[in-house]
Amino acid sequence: MRMDFLTLFPEMFPGVLQSSMLKQAQDKQAVSYHVHNIRDFSENKHRKTDDYPYGGGAGMVLTPQPVFDAAAFARQQSSSQARIILLCPQGAPFTQEDAEELAGEKQLIFLCGHYEGYDERIRTHLATDEYSIGDFIMTGGELGAMTLADSITRLLPGVLGNSESAAADSFSESLLEHPHYTRPADFRGLKVPDVLLSGHHKNIETWRRQQALERTRKRRPDLLEKSAEHLSVKENEENR
Amino acid sequence: MRMDFLTLFPEMFPGVLQSSMLKQAQDKQAVSYHVHNIRDFSENKHRKTDDYPYGGGAGMVLTPQPVFDAAAFARQQSSSQARIILLCPQGAPFTQEDAEELAGEKQLIFLCGHYEGYDERIRTHLATDEYSIGDFIMTGGELGAMTLADSITRLLPGVLGNSESAAADSFSESLLEHPHYTRPADFRGLKVPDVLLSGHHKNIETWRRQQALERTRKRRPDLLEKSAEHLSVKENEENR
Repeated sequence: MRMDFLTLFPEMFPGVLQSSMLKQAQDKQAVSYHVHNIRDFSENKHRKTDDYPYGGGAGMVLTPQPVFDAAAFARQQSSSQARIILLCPQGAPFTQEDAEELAGEKQLIFLCGHYEGYDERIRTHLATDEYSIGDFIMTGGELGAMTLADSITRLLPGVLGNSESAAADSFSESLLEHPHYTRPADFRGLKVPDVLLSGHHKNIETWRRQQALERTRKRRPDLLEKSAEHLSVKENEENR
Repeated sequence: MRMDFLTLFPEMFPGVLQSSMLKQAQDKQAVSYHVHNIRDFSENKHRKTDDYPYGGGAGMVLTPQPVFDAAAFARQQSSSQARIILLCPQGAPFTQEDAEELAGEKQLIFLCGHYEGYDERIRTHLATDEYSIGDFIMTGGELGAMTLADSITRLLPGVLGNSESAAADSFSESLLEHPHYTRPADFRGLKVPDVLLSGHHKNIETWRRQQALERTRKRRPDLLEKSAEHLSVKENEENR
């Protein structure tokens, strides 16, 4: 997959894209990252990329020209039909299902607005998808774009090892994960639950399932509805 | 405010923390950032920070010792009682209200798990708060921590100019923003709505309010309930 990032702050990207799983995925040639400075595409002689809002109001608005032209350039780098993803508070809340769907694409172009807004024509005539990563205000779309890139890249074939993929599969049930414990069994007086040290695999499995269900009931009851079809009749009854 | 980030991937941070608003906030001494490598606190002679899970299963688990000790070190750097924030899928979905509440603290310590899990004692006996930035799987907590840092930092006194603060205020009504337009009035055949070029301020205000309401109804009807108290009786009737 090819990922293009259109931004006014290209310096935000390399530290994240060149670390950890995102770096490994590029090393394995599962994905390539291309960061473009929107300012480089401005036809304005001062390379301006924003202007005052029509109708008045506070703040500056990102102009359409450099963004349309940067997206056109990114599109020309691949023969496939790119999805153009705008990160914005008005977008649909991004979910794991969206990550899975987008992981099937050949090219994704991320539009990171900064400043206080973008010209509406970017939304209506350039973006193919709009996503938000939550109901909070951010300075720009860059961290959102890197967040989507992380969650999508880890789903690409060959990026994760088997054990990691297996861990991910459990999320598709929409239950929160059970607790994990590792050595030491006694850390400064804080002890690991006896059942995990028992070596009794059936009991361990039952305990983990109960913990996952209990935690989901307590913290995210909204997830239980989604996961109903994966639960036993008895588990569903207990959730009522 | 002092922000400490505990991570196994410190190289992910400088590009983000040294750009744009986050950089300006540090330059204005509204905030200081301190990134710590969890590995530096490992007492293991190979500086190991993970181990096999008790009870079996796929993947490695972050051990408690280096994380507890890194957090203790970060705490000692400030005389105030730090909040210790764990980024994890089990956490509460982070919202703007959380950002506003956390912006009142003196020190925030962000725990970024990586690998497939952390020892549960980190959650139960170290973290004071747990947040998630959405229902999708990520490789680690780093991007989540930077996301929280961005949304919190921009609320600190003196960080944003007046016009930007004003723009942010509108979000507290829980309505999505109205569309913005800037020059040119005709961009490659795509035109700015006439009302915005009219100079008639009352009509512009009415149009913007209608657009914001309409967009919220269509895209995020769940937000309308929260904003009911800020809407007129007539607007609330139209939402039914």
